[in-house]
Amino acid sequence: MANKGGLRGAVVADSTSSLVDGDNGRLIYEGYEIQTLAENALFEEVVYLLWHHKLPNKTELETLRSEIATGAVLPAQIIDLMKLLPKDADPMAVLRTVVSALAHYDADAENLKDKDVAAQKAVRLTGQITAICAAWDRIRKGHEPIAPREDLYLAQNFVYMLSGNEPDKTASDAFNVYLVLLAEHGMNASTFTGRVITATGSDMHSAIVGAIGALKGPSHGGANAEAMRMFVEIGEVENVDTWFDQYIKTGERRIMGIGHAIYKAYDPRASILRGHAEALAKSTGNTKWFTIADNLANRALADEYFIERKLYPNVDYYSAILLYTLHLDINMFTPLFAMARIAGWSAHVIDQMGGRLIRPDMNYTGTFDLSWTPLDQRN
Amino acid sequence: MANKGGLRGAVVADSTSSLVDGDNGRLIYEGYEIQTLAENALFEEVVYLLWHHKLPNKTELETLRSEIATGAVLPAQIIDLMKLLPKDADPMAVLRTVVSALAHYDADAENLKDKDVAAQKAVRLTGQITAICAAWDRIRKGHEPIAPREDLYLAQNFVYMLSGNEPDKTASDAFNVYLVLLAEHGMNASTFTGRVITATGSDMHSAIVGAIGALKGPSHGGANAEAMRMFVEIGEVENVDTWFDQYIKTGERRIMGIGHAIYKAYDPRASILRGHAEALAKSTGNTKWFTIADNLANRALADEYFIERKLYPNVDYYSAILLYTLHLDINMFTPLFAMARIAGWSAHVIDQMGGRLIRPDMNYTGTFDLSWTPLDQRN
Repeated sequence: MANKGGLRGAVVADSTSSLVDGDNGRLIYEGYEIQTLAENALFEEVVYLLWHHKLPNKTELETLRSEIATGAVLPAQIIDLMKLLPKDADPMAVLRTVVSALAHYDADAENLKDKDVAAQKAVRLTGQITAICAAWDRIRKGHEPIAPREDLYLAQNFVYMLSGNEPDKTASDAFNVYLVLLAEHGMNASTFTGRVITATGSDMHSAIVGAIGALKGPSHGGANAEAMRMFVEIGEVENVDTWFDQYIKTGERRIMGIGHAIYKAYDPRASILRGHAEALAKSTGNTKWFTIADNLANRALADEYFIERKLYPNVDYYSAILLYTLHLDINMFTPLFAMARIAGWSAHVIDQMGGRLIRPDMNYTGTFDLSWTPLDQRN
Repeated sequence: MANKGGLRGAVVADSTSSLVDGDNGRLIYEGYEIQTLAENALFEEVVYLLWHHKLPNKTELETLRSEIATGAVLPAQIIDLMKLLPKDADPMAVLRTVVSALAHYDADAENLKDKDVAAQKAVRLTGQITAICAAWDRIRKGHEPIAPREDLYLAQNFVYMLSGNEPDKTASDAFNVYLVLLAEHGMNASTFTGRVITATGSDMHSAIVGAIGALKGPSHGGANAEAMRMFVEIGEVENVDTWFDQYIKTGERRIMGIGHAIYKAYDPRASILRGHAEALAKSTGNTKWFTIADNLANRALADEYFIERKLYPNVDYYSAILLYTLHLDINMFTPLFAMARIAGWSAHVIDQMGGRLIRPDMNYTGTFDLSWTPLDQRN
């Protein structure tokens, strides 16, 4: 078989978790259109939906909310370990190290087969990843981390753990939508990584650590940070056209956050996030970044090159604006993506448990039958 | 397209690194038959071969040997971190955490694009993974780790770092063959994991950490430890037949280390390792485990079920005996696999850098157009 490189179209699994309809710009989680979920759902409802294939009732939602909030408490040894790490370490690399280390303090880490036990690990990891993001943002700035509160939803708890203040409704609502939109997305590279690792019979922490490593890449979750760095570089609305002509028209660079491996129509998450970013920009009076992003997108969408190739803003483009307007540091953007995607990752990992080893092939292009030349006779 | 599950036959890359000819029980690295390499090569020569597609001359070999030995020194912060971890932590989970943490002290960790810089990181990681294996085996037993010596080959250095004694030639020669045989093996699940992570543009440490997580699985590198636990459970040569009848004939369990995803003939590495395990058993007088393994293999190879399905001992089966006879703890077996496979992993990671995002598909089997039910109306 010929080398397909990116494995496009090769089907890895049957799943009800999500449908990414790239041609029509449509995204479905477990039967629900993403617009429906973005308008109505708490992140915990989406987590329940992805794990149990139905929405929770009141009791089920409260149980899950409470378990995630309780599970978000980091072991003291983990806080100590985080304090030892260099303060300028890449936050995604820190998340990778710390999630790996959590396994050493999880009594169920090496339970490899029981799906119910795995589901409980997923609950803990969902809380813990949020706690790590908030704790690392504080620790690297020289502050003590703040433990989660047992009475809050995850989006609220994140805002609370970042600042220690009562969570602001505008901020926690915006985070909630962000988490809902980024919770799951078909057989993306990080989810796929988690499945490949799980298919060897390995443990959930290994799978999630691998997924974090994949998400870190600039062609995957790393793109939200890259997009924001680009907006900051442009700096002012009046620079958009010049910047576009200098770097994009010449083909020297590409616009980070525009174009997608699957979407050949407008990414539905980008259009929802654009609305939230605009509202947040207006309500905070900080409209500068939204306007830069919107002007650059309009400039691109009117350009032949982008029209021909069906390149539209993707989820990273406007989520960068949303997060920056909420005063998040740019290098925390990708860890925040992981906070959301743990929902989908863990659903796929549990689904993959006990499944067949994923082992594709490669095409050997080397020679045959070379004979051994002793060391002193080699050139 | 139908769900293929394991992606068998889907081609991910062109490569000269190795050919796994499962039908004929043949393995080639860069044009050399594995038998040729096992008879002649130092591990460092194989590492050079996989990275540069040719054998090194005297100067090139000495340079690489020296760079790997020097690179094997672990930063003091890493030793401190290892001492904080619980002594009963799974050694593969420890390797995963510690390799991830190494990135925080590697000035080039976030250099994502330069292949020459990546090659230098691969040199360091090759030494460091060996150093971590030796250090962890000492630290968990309450001993101080021993720094590598600059004058030794990696197999010798491992033996030295384990004990602090001048490396025994029998042991270091046996380790050298082990490392040569396990250095590379086509598009196996851990190598593939490293490629998927690298294809997102992520860093080398993320790719290797993901690969370690995949190797950890009992259906991949974890099988060597599982095989040895099975031999220990059998306990005595005279128990082999009863054990086989009770667990294997009844279909209750399967023999760990027999059968392979690709090999439908005798794994050539298993036959080489069988020879070394036998020689080592005889030279040490400790023949018990070799005899149990060999008798069990003969019993299986004469059984209809195994004959029909072409199930033969694989690399894990006799490597378990080799390592156990060298007094390695069973739960260190899989980390020792990583010590070897870092050679192939890093070759594939560097080859994948700058390549296309690997993103297969899934088959959505869910419903459509569900409408939102408010929380208090749900059952």
